[in-house]
Amino acid sequence: MAIITLTTDFGLKDPYLGAMKGAMLSINPKATIADISHLITPGNILEGAFVLAGAYSYFPDGAVHVGVADPGVGGGRRPILIETERYLFVGPDNGLLSLAVEREKVRRVVRLTEKKYFLKEVSSTFHGRDIFGPVAAHLTLGVSPGAFGDPLKEGPVSIGIPRPSVRNGVVKGTVIYVDSFGNLITNIKAGDLTAGLGPGYKDRLEAEIKGFAIQGLSKTYSAVAKGAAAAIIGSSNHMEIAVNQGKASEVLGAQAGEGVIVRLASP
Amino acid sequence: MAIITLTTDFGLKDPYLGAMKGAMLSINPKATIADISHLITPGNILEGAFVLAGAYSYFPDGAVHVGVADPGVGGGRRPILIETERYLFVGPDNGLLSLAVEREKVRRVVRLTEKKYFLKEVSSTFHGRDIFGPVAAHLTLGVSPGAFGDPLKEGPVSIGIPRPSVRNGVVKGTVIYVDSFGNLITNIKAGDLTAGLGPGYKDRLEAEIKGFAIQGLSKTYSAVAKGAAAAIIGSSNHMEIAVNQGKASEVLGAQAGEGVIVRLASP
Amino acid sequence: MAIITLTTDFGLKDPYLGAMKGAMLSINPKATIADISHLITPGNILEGAFVLAGAYSYFPDGAVHVGVADPGVGGGRRPILIETERYLFVGPDNGLLSLAVEREKVRRVVRLTEKKYFLKEVSSTFHGRDIFGPVAAHLTLGVSPGAFGDPLKEGPVSIGIPRPSVRNGVVKGTVIYVDSFGNLITNIKAGDLTAGLGPGYKDRLEAEIKGFAIQGLSKTYSAVAKGAAAAIIGSSNHMEIAVNQGKASEVLGAQAGEGVIVRLASP
Repeated sequence: MAIITLTTDFGLKDPYLGAMKGAMLSINPKATIADISHLITPGNILEGAFVLAGAYSYFPDGAVHVGVADPGVGGGRRPILIETERYLFVGPDNGLLSLAVEREKVRRVVRLTEKKYFLKEVSSTFHGRDIFGPVAAHLTLGVSPGAFGDPLKEGPVSIGIPRPSVRNGVVKGTVIYVDSFGNLITNIKAGDLTAGLGPGYKDRLEAEIKGFAIQGLSKTYSAVAKGAAAAIIGSSNHMEIAVNQGKASEVLGAQAGEGVIVRLASP
Repeated sequence: MAIITLTTDFGLKDPYLGAMKGAMLSINPKATIADISHLITPGNILEGAFVLAGAYSYFPDGAVHVGVADPGVGGGRRPILIETERYLFVGPDNGLLSLAVEREKVRRVVRLTEKKYFLKEVSSTFHGRDIFGPVAAHLTLGVSPGAFGDPLKEGPVSIGIPRPSVRNGVVKGTVIYVDSFGNLITNIKAGDLTAGLGPGYKDRLEAEIKGFAIQGLSKTYSAVAKGAAAAIIGSSNHMEIAVNQGKASEVLGAQAGEGVIVRLASP
Repeated sequence: MAIITLTTDFGLKDPYLGAMKGAMLSINPKATIADISHLITPGNILEGAFVLAGAYSYFPDGAVHVGVADPGVGGGRRPILIETERYLFVGPDNGLLSLAVEREKVRRVVRLTEKKYFLKEVSSTFHGRDIFGPVAAHLTLGVSPGAFGDPLKEGPVSIGIPRPSVRNGVVKGTVIYVDSFGNLITNIKAGDLTAGLGPGYKDRLEAEIKGFAIQGLSKTYSAVAKGAAAAIIGSSNHMEIAVNQGKASEVLGAQAGEGVIVRLASP
């Protein structure tokens, strides 16, 4: 097993991604490198954490997940490695790994200090190429997590996604991510709806966003008329607002941060 | 042989592509996954079909080609597998696979129903991750196409590219795709020009688009002056309109759907 | 060792990249294809040369580096192969490979003429798929560079990046590349600053661009206040102008070609 996944804000044009891949393949030419995303908005840790959390768990046990969105590179933030029951995670200790890791059983967290596993010269601006990539490649060669440094004493840093409020039969949440289809993905999970509205909510649910009211929970995007908005429990188990064959973000004029209120429609 | 190609409208930012790759590598960690495109305009089946048809045939025999542009996911459209003499194709039965498949010798078409080859939980919104990817991965492990379900009774769905009209020495066609260089690729093939204009047409051809007239067929983009428009038989054997070191789509103000008329210039 | 890197201006939407990968995998299904970039501005040879030069050297010895940004395809420019002590480079002889190759020890330059290593039908518009990709794949199978053609008699074509001027304690350079973080990467290297300003320049340096003055050389992006501009020796050893948690290109309104003047601040 030598699978490394990459989630970064490097973009796809510059030499950075190629340099990092080269550094990894120089250490383990047989590693399989699987790109999750390189289009995280530069420096947007929450967005990177959400994308990594939405993809990592489909990879086989033993995969090494590397995340790099690292506005504090070269400063005080610590480079870390987290070993969980199923995976290894490598990246800056700024919360980027936390949404994925909080769903896993953590075995140990190691601060990366052992320089023999880094590139010979470590720049102060590009730890993806000089530290995180090389460490991941050495992990796929079987180097033990403990060899990279001592256990982290405090932390690691965690960025929780804000939780929706559930009160008096009303669930109030927020759009946390807008995908490339324009779907508005909220922080409301199926369990929050059951908790807030009771088990029989699916047909009677009413979702309100930007003054628009959406009736009922749809099973598929195409269950509503073309151009109509639908509330759906999406493939990552979050409630999302979509428009059939359109972009909800444009039709409703909504972005990440927009509030969403869900209640039962009056009978 | 364990090559899987992917042609999707997932974009490159969201967790979807990573999740699908993870699902495939969990079934066959040795599969080689080759991206054809993930930037198909969301839900644009014709565009996806054109891109897949322009790339698939260069892959070695035995490759598994997966296409996902699937606005009807979770609704009535059927998930299918098409076995041809050279390849296996997997995707929704909405025409996405049809431009490629119509050039191949079809052996059988199977409706995907055997749940043991899907992810354990199949969502109603993401069959790329839950059905198509896993089926492709199982195919690379040698599972027989017949094991995934029964033969499809009707169909599969076909979307033909509209054919150009050839009449009285005039060939009338349409721009069907604009590539990232701004080249306007038409539905007119070299054979249509021979049929419509006679064998000696190359020097005497006149192409008309958006009121502009282009004289002669060029062999290369650089055969005309910088900034000038040229008619070329492109690398996929379609006639295209290009501008040397410029973007024909911008210079001529033309998009997919624009009409093109080709005739012999008056001597 | 069978690693092929790709640096092209094909974009990520069209069938071209997939067709080229298919052509390579048909010759060597075990090749590892590593994408460096496919978002080079169409036909921008200098940009492609800069990106390739910034990434290639991190790959293991023996890697085959293919570059395709080829506005003169099918015309007079020659398809070439350059063997250096560590690598093989394949592409059009238009300068695209030159910034990387000028740092390596060249063993021989071969003009690609041996048709048995090309695709059966070579188009006049797509040599990436028909010539460069297939040649690279044959190289990973162990075919000797000399088998592809005769030594190149003149050339290869070189595009130098303009050198900064160093005079009377003033270094004048140019922005040569703007990366996706908005960092303005100049042609001024650390050695130019030492030569022009003397060894103790780091704290006393003053960089001027677009009328803005930046004091001192920072070690990291986050060493200055949020939104402030910093001069940094970046990960490729070029001086760059960055804005902490912002885009220098937007904040300063500067693009490639912009002049930069560096001197010592008055004590």
